Amino acid sequence: MAIHVGVIGLGRMGQIHARNIAENVPDATLYAACSYVDEELELAKREFGVKETYKNYEDMIANTNLDAVVIVSPSGLHTEHIRIAMQKGLHVFCEKPIGLDSEDIKKTIEVINSRPNQVFQLGFMRRYDESYQYAKKLVDEGTIGELTLIRCYGIDPSSGLESFVNFAKNSRSGGLFADMSIHDIDLVRWFTGKEIKRVWAIGKNAAYPILDKLGELETGAAMMQLEDKTMAILVAGRNAAHGYHVETELIGTKGMLRVAQQPEKNLVTIFNNEGVVRPTSQNFPERFHDAFIREMKEFISCIKEGRQPEVTAYDGLLGTIVADACQKSVETNSIVVID
Amino acid sequence: MAIHVGVIGLGRMGQIHARNIAENVPDATLYAACSYVDEELELAKREFGVKETYKNYEDMIANTNLDAVVIVSPSGLHTEHIRIAMQKGLHVFCEKPIGLDSEDIKKTIEVINSRPNQVFQLGFMRRYDESYQYAKKLVDEGTIGELTLIRCYGIDPSSGLESFVNFAKNSRSGGLFADMSIHDIDLVRWFTGKEIKRVWAIGKNAAYPILDKLGELETGAAMMQLEDKTMAILVAGRNAAHGYHVETELIGTKGMLRVAQQPEKNLVTIFNNEGVVRPTSQNFPERFHDAFIREMKEFISCIKEGRQPEVTAYDGLLGTIVADACQKSVETNSIVVID
Amino acid sequence: MAIHVGVIGLGRMGQIHARNIAENVPDATLYAACSYVDEELELAKREFGVKETYKNYEDMIANTNLDAVVIVSPSGLHTEHIRIAMQKGLHVFCEKPIGLDSEDIKKTIEVINSRPNQVFQLGFMRRYDESYQYAKKLVDEGTIGELTLIRCYGIDPSSGLESFVNFAKNSRSGGLFADMSIHDIDLVRWFTGKEIKRVWAIGKNAAYPILDKLGELETGAAMMQLEDKTMAILVAGRNAAHGYHVETELIGTKGMLRVAQQPEKNLVTIFNNEGVVRPTSQNFPERFHDAFIREMKEFISCIKEGRQPEVTAYDGLLGTIVADACQKSVETNSIVVID
Amino acid sequence: MAIHVGVIGLGRMGQIHARNIAENVPDATLYAACSYVDEELELAKREFGVKETYKNYEDMIANTNLDAVVIVSPSGLHTEHIRIAMQKGLHVFCEKPIGLDSEDIKKTIEVINSRPNQVFQLGFMRRYDESYQYAKKLVDEGTIGELTLIRCYGIDPSSGLESFVNFAKNSRSGGLFADMSIHDIDLVRWFTGKEIKRVWAIGKNAAYPILDKLGELETGAAMMQLEDKTMAILVAGRNAAHGYHVETELIGTKGMLRVAQQPEKNLVTIFNNEGVVRPTSQNFPERFHDAFIREMKEFISCIKEGRQPEVTAYDGLLGTIVADACQKSVETNSIVVID
Repeated sequence: MAIHVGVIGLGRMGQIHARNIAENVPDATLYAACSYVDEELELAKREFGVKETYKNYEDMIANTNLDAVVIVSPSGLHTEHIRIAMQKGLHVFCEKPIGLDSEDIKKTIEVINSRPNQVFQLGFMRRYDESYQYAKKLVDEGTIGELTLIRCYGIDPSSGLESFVNFAKNSRSGGLFADMSIHDIDLVRWFTGKEIKRVWAIGKNAAYPILDKLGELETGAAMMQLEDKTMAILVAGRNAAHGYHVETELIGTKGMLRVAQQPEKNLVTIFNNEGVVRPTSQNFPERFHDAFIREMKEFISCIKEGRQPEVTAYDGLLGTIVADACQKSVETNSIVVID
Repeated sequence: MAIHVGVIGLGRMGQIHARNIAENVPDATLYAACSYVDEELELAKREFGVKETYKNYEDMIANTNLDAVVIVSPSGLHTEHIRIAMQKGLHVFCEKPIGLDSEDIKKTIEVINSRPNQVFQLGFMRRYDESYQYAKKLVDEGTIGELTLIRCYGIDPSSGLESFVNFAKNSRSGGLFADMSIHDIDLVRWFTGKEIKRVWAIGKNAAYPILDKLGELETGAAMMQLEDKTMAILVAGRNAAHGYHVETELIGTKGMLRVAQQPEKNLVTIFNNEGVVRPTSQNFPERFHDAFIREMKEFISCIKEGRQPEVTAYDGLLGTIVADACQKSVETNSIVVID
Repeated sequence: MAIHVGVIGLGRMGQIHARNIAENVPDATLYAACSYVDEELELAKREFGVKETYKNYEDMIANTNLDAVVIVSPSGLHTEHIRIAMQKGLHVFCEKPIGLDSEDIKKTIEVINSRPNQVFQLGFMRRYDESYQYAKKLVDEGTIGELTLIRCYGIDPSSGLESFVNFAKNSRSGGLFADMSIHDIDLVRWFTGKEIKRVWAIGKNAAYPILDKLGELETGAAMMQLEDKTMAILVAGRNAAHGYHVETELIGTKGMLRVAQQPEKNLVTIFNNEGVVRPTSQNFPERFHDAFIREMKEFISCIKEGRQPEVTAYDGLLGTIVADACQKSVETNSIVVID
Repeated sequence: MAIHVGVIGLGRMGQIHARNIAENVPDATLYAACSYVDEELELAKREFGVKETYKNYEDMIANTNLDAVVIVSPSGLHTEHIRIAMQKGLHVFCEKPIGLDSEDIKKTIEVINSRPNQVFQLGFMRRYDESYQYAKKLVDEGTIGELTLIRCYGIDPSSGLESFVNFAKNSRSGGLFADMSIHDIDLVRWFTGKEIKRVWAIGKNAAYPILDKLGELETGAAMMQLEDKTMAILVAGRNAAHGYHVETELIGTKGMLRVAQQPEKNLVTIFNNEGVVRPTSQNFPERFHDAFIREMKEFISCIKEGRQPEVTAYDGLLGTIVADACQKSVETNSIVVID
């Protein structure tokens, strides 16, 4: 029997999950969708074959045909949406971040933990990317020895920078590190198995100096010291001319690994008057196309097999705490210690 | 309504197609399977959820619940299996080669052509690989100008060479070029849109000189002149120490393209005492994992949408004719002209 | 007329300079050499054709046949040797660092500045490496826009780590950042044209935990904020399994550059059972072979043409000040502000 | 004592050798130069410090101050210039090709062989390129097992194509393979140690179809069978959009090597809106800058040490014979057998 899933939120990310459930996860059926936007609900029916649509989340949740919900609502609503669904007995997949406020997240984790038979998974899809999994396996097998330093880049393409600047004139993004580095913070914790203790984060605005006034950053860097002195370096940005640059480097006592040293789009190399050119991934849906499918397959498998996924709500809490520390460090230009 | 598919042949390649139909093509159901081997039929039930199994092809074909058949039987049986299924009114997907004898293939093409409302697709999956499609688009858009030369490598991993030598002691493979280059011949025709007119093919056995006596080749090369003087160079082999090396180069008047210049496994780079290492694809199921899914999705889409796929039976005929010419050229060490 | 050069110090680095003057700089003659070690003086005569050898620096300097001196003595003696030679009217090339104590360096700079007609050059050879010069040109032409972040790696090969540990049991290295990062600090200043204002440096010992007790580091990282908020990240180490890893990345508003993203030894790629392998540079004499020649040619050209080189004593002073700040930051695990 | 060298011919290639002798080969002095062109002789005096200039080759050769001559005259004059110099007792370095007519070359080789105490070296500089020497060492050490196939590309940059077409309207180039592949033919023989027995060569003109009428080729390919069945594939061209593409691949029973798989200019990688870009070598003086110096140093060392270099006149003869066979094959579109 296919797992019946309802999705809340049909923005860019919501549509990715909806389409994957509908087309790429054989054991799941996208049964219902919820959005404030009529056009999105129409699209969900037309493109993803959704049977029922809702404008109100609690109405959708009340439908007893649902087994699970996929939460892709605005970040500020995640915790509430999680709690409601858990309390209704539904399995929950929640897009990152789990929440914006750490006390609120802790309260939500209590609800999740009180329902051990329901699956909860957070959308840290990079853990399901084949290249990251290959790297993790090599690290766990000791191929590069003990880790001493991990470097993570997460830089969005320049093509989106101007619209971000316009957005920032009216809204707060939550800060560059919360926005861009939450996956990288999770990678640091996942690869090392250690917690981050001290952070210094800085930034510079050069393409759009107006961002200084708006309290936002175009490019930032954070250096972190982990509990066992392992070092982490994060670079976050919104201005990669060549596309979507997500790169992770692991330095160990016996070797180094780089995941996507160059964000290669595919296996094609072009020789033209520029030189030797490798085309690059242009955005996260392209780069993590397969990872999004694989994380959703894992969610459905967990439900069918009665087990919990590797990515926990606690991972989400730590992501938010460390991102907050980065933001505070930027604002104070000093080292922030995380308890 | 899902398309009901029966598969004939459950060897390595048959299992790949069977699994993809069962797990990765939402609009298709793997309904039946046919094999001489009981264990394979058991596996088809257990792993792929097949409802009915057969030891006899004609019995399976007679099942009126089937819409389509996927033929992965021994190459020598392909044409007969195609004709029988077409005459039963089924849609047919056939693994390469379409056949071994060009007259027999022509007769089969007549049957296929007499049934224009049934879909026929040949398993030239490279055309459905994302990197090849990206390259084809660039070529068709004129990015590299007019093509003057195309170079294709198809080299199997060394890991399989010893068992090939043992196989060759008792059986004929059909020759290196028929075995390894049929996809490359199709790529030459696909990218250039021109036919191959003259061929000279040679080879050398160095790792296993016994192959000389067995009339087989470890490594071979063929140079081809197309009808418009475009040049093609094919290297085929069974002895790539680094894995499965399928590489295609396109030289045009305005630039060059290489597809899989290095058969990179994923996006991971390792820095160790060897130097800077990119792990490589180890075999065709790994390299063309997605292409196999995409070609099967295309087959099912064609059925649902009532259209024919790009890859035709005629493409299969030409592949066999050119591979035969290569083999004849090796045997005579002279240029063979193709009418 | 060839410039007559005397060299003080014939260790590994001294021999590199001596050989280059003797064999690769047509306009210079290696006239004299000074060392405490008889074997080194014998070698200088035999291999480099030195006419006169000395065990005492002041004796060599007193030889009126000399036009210039190349100082490759122990770092602690550099400033004194510079002052003596300048006061004798000689042109001076001094290997890095210019000195160990910033007050002492300032005093030396006064002597240098009082002799504007004598050439003084410091051994920041990376500025003379073709790849760095190519990158500098691209940056200066605005190809990548305004710089926002620069990342510098300087990691020695693992092959030398064990002997370093033994060395560290009896001696102080001056610290990882003084030892390894002085070139990187110069690159940061050279590429950005800005001064470093704040530093946080950390480290971790994993391969040889005994280094903790010895007050040394196997791998370290420093994050820096420049006067205009440009960010700099330095990674220094003594344990690169793949060889000598010197890499520099420049992130700008219009693009990124990497110099030696992979420390490729030459243009050879190997395909073997490891995958696709690029052999790597194993040590600094190999990586900067040409740069050492080019910097020495520049020194001799400056003398002949009566001009000063780009690399000044002041650059040396700043290198030492920033390296000191890194070391102090490691010891206090806090941000150090540089005036 | 420095070896006194005279150079005949001061075109592009002649100036490269002249400058190297003057500036980069410490044991040699560029003593004399010979050219029909006054401006070139002026340049030789001004830039290379030549002491004596000549408009007549025999006059220069008669100067008893000369130890050696470097022949960079038009190809049609090479053999005569070699014979005259050898008979005068001079050591001879001759740019490739050794000659245009194989009987004439054989006669010249007799003269060379009759003077075993005089050094004769042919300008196959690739053998002195560090990457080629590294590859040769790996092959000779057996790293990739027994060679089965060698692939050589020699493609000039597009930037020179239009002027070639204009040149071809009035003059004969000797043919694409003689012009571009002579170094590749030498590499095939050098790496394999075997002779080429059968050749089929073809070509296509697409950018400038007028080349068909002029009997010239824009791009060509030759497949060769060696005496032990080793295969060789040569691609020659005049139209590489990305620059100067000289690439050599060696396929063996235990691995593959590629020299300059990508003609990387230096160690810089650019990330811009094209993707990830490696700039490329633009012409042979850039690509083989060091190799030209190293071959000249070897010539001078041979003279000083009384030995002969690895590259012999016989290698030159074979290069010309095989290039002739390629040309004949193109003209007849058939396999040409070499005795």
